[in-house]
Amino acid sequence: MRETLAEWQPAIDDAIADFLPRDVDTDYLESFFGESTYEYDPTGIQRALSDPIWDLLDRGGKRWRAVLFLVFIDAFGEDPAAYLPYACIPEILHNGTIIVDDVEDEASMRRGEPALHHIYGEDVALNAGNAMYFLPLKILTHDPGNLPAERRLAAYEMLMDELNRTHLGQGMDICWHNEREVRVSPEEYLEMCACKTGCLGRIVARLAAIITDQPAEVERHAAAYAELTAVAFQIGDDILDVEHSLGRAGDFGKEFGNDVREGKKTLMVIHAIEESDAAEADRLQEILGAETNTDEEVLEALSILENAGSVEYARERALGLAEQARAHVDALDFEPEIAEQLTEFTEFVVERDV
Amino acid sequence: MRETLAEWQPAIDDAIADFLPRDVDTDYLESFFGESTYEYDPTGIQRALSDPIWDLLDRGGKRWRAVLFLVFIDAFGEDPAAYLPYACIPEILHNGTIIVDDVEDEASMRRGEPALHHIYGEDVALNAGNAMYFLPLKILTHDPGNLPAERRLAAYEMLMDELNRTHLGQGMDICWHNEREVRVSPEEYLEMCACKTGCLGRIVARLAAIITDQPAEVERHAAAYAELTAVAFQIGDDILDVEHSLGRAGDFGKEFGNDVREGKKTLMVIHAIEESDAAEADRLQEILGAETNTDEEVLEALSILENAGSVEYARERALGLAEQARAHVDALDFEPEIAEQLTEFTEFVVERDV
Repeated sequence: MRETLAEWQPAIDDAIADFLPRDVDTDYLESFFGESTYEYDPTGIQRALSDPIWDLLDRGGKRWRAVLFLVFIDAFGEDPAAYLPYACIPEILHNGTIIVDDVEDEASMRRGEPALHHIYGEDVALNAGNAMYFLPLKILTHDPGNLPAERRLAAYEMLMDELNRTHLGQGMDICWHNEREVRVSPEEYLEMCACKTGCLGRIVARLAAIITDQPAEVERHAAAYAELTAVAFQIGDDILDVEHSLGRAGDFGKEFGNDVREGKKTLMVIHAIEESDAAEADRLQEILGAETNTDEEVLEALSILENAGSVEYARERALGLAEQARAHVDALDFEPEIAEQLTEFTEFVVERDV
Repeated sequence: MRETLAEWQPAIDDAIADFLPRDVDTDYLESFFGESTYEYDPTGIQRALSDPIWDLLDRGGKRWRAVLFLVFIDAFGEDPAAYLPYACIPEILHNGTIIVDDVEDEASMRRGEPALHHIYGEDVALNAGNAMYFLPLKILTHDPGNLPAERRLAAYEMLMDELNRTHLGQGMDICWHNEREVRVSPEEYLEMCACKTGCLGRIVARLAAIITDQPAEVERHAAAYAELTAVAFQIGDDILDVEHSLGRAGDFGKEFGNDVREGKKTLMVIHAIEESDAAEADRLQEILGAETNTDEEVLEALSILENAGSVEYARERALGLAEQARAHVDALDFEPEIAEQLTEFTEFVVERDV
């Protein structure tokens, strides 16, 4: 899939620029958004939408969602190049959620540069992020190619399902972050990931299935694969933070233990609190709930996770999800080469070390 | 329409509670959002969505959009009570934009109480506001009654049109607010209003037309009426701020000139800068662009608006819009009583004095 990525990236960016050009003029506004009643201000829309959005897109980002979409299109026996406009839908949605999440999480940096709201202000950043929730949905209508009405409707209804659950997931995550105590179960943590991260994966898979008119079973397996891979990715990400922290803690001046410092309630934290004795569980809660932590406190929290076997537990769960993902790929009966690509992708997100 | 409002308000709130209950449990989550893959956290979703959203809704708000929707349903010869679930769509969307706008505008108060982000934090408020962009769109699918597929699709495509233009309007407004100079024309100001405020009005009218299967011409006239009324409302609002300020400026301790203090580029400001001599226009720009203003400076700005005839100009434009709105109502050929109600509503929003 990494080769596919390098191959498609420029074409994906060109397709995005067809819907949101780097230079906004009245012709574009009228053709994409419809005639104005009075008179558009292209300069204002350039500054409010195009500039911040392209600033973010030009910082890189791997366009994984668009590429995964194209891999599915290929797997379903269609020509990916013909479906590039639709590949933009999950990609633009994803970048929109990044902008909004960064405001919600008070993030300072994004892809090596200041988060958008630090450059353009919260007002511009939020409106641009929210515009990216709706702009891609217009692609279905604007560029339907030969997409019949029932597929457009199915796509809209699917998108409304998934985008609603995205906000449930983000709501759970925010709520837990703001609560002092850790009160949730591993199953609730996985649901949060399935909603918050998984739904965008599901959109990738389901959109590819819907617009190429696959049977419901195919759509279901493809969606399950994408959701499982996304959840496994999230757990892999949390593990990586702990392992890097344990590896780096001795290196002078290196940051480590970011998730502990942020008080993040990861699957490992939830497991450790369930499995440790009361004193250790309380101590872990205390460190996570504190406004600031010393390096020693962070190391103490990390060793509570280690002692409870929580890193192994999380890795086992992630591998279990990857195994389930593989089963769904097998059920899809794709060409062996494509099936292998999809399975390798899941393994990569679980086991990557950067 | 005000009688209609009082009559319908409790039923509208009950209908909203069907889609987002005050008390969230797993049954509701599974029936509205679908089965969980793992396990929902109803407590988290209560705290992240239901609590802040009902806090806002319980503060009042007039439910104008829902009522206008029901008036249209009635005008189209259908029973409004049967369409209550759909009346929630524009109402929930509207309240969602309020929450997000309040963050974007750094508003401190809303409906007499602290803005939601001051109570729940920006993260919860933004996610709740954004959830309110998607939750109502699911109503079309969740409670389709006997709504055939082609009407659901038409509704989705209409909503994507209008919600995209909403973000263009908000983008223009934010951009102009952040710019020091006033560089836009009256036609661009009206377009900003047509997009930012008008599109929600258009959603009200077009949704009522689409789900009762009206001809395209009917939908077009109803949408134009709602857009014109919304734009006229916005101008009326700006005039009210100036007139109240001129009336109150002598009263010790009363706030006045809020729009001038915020540097708002209203239709009156745009007109005054076009019509005043260079020295007065520069002075007006200077006062609007300043971080803070003394009462004397605010009065000076207000008198530049008065001298340029900008209040009369704005009132003339608003009355002109109201006249156009009436023409669209006439073209709709409604029962005289309903036509009168709609026309009175436009006149009320232009000429109200509170």
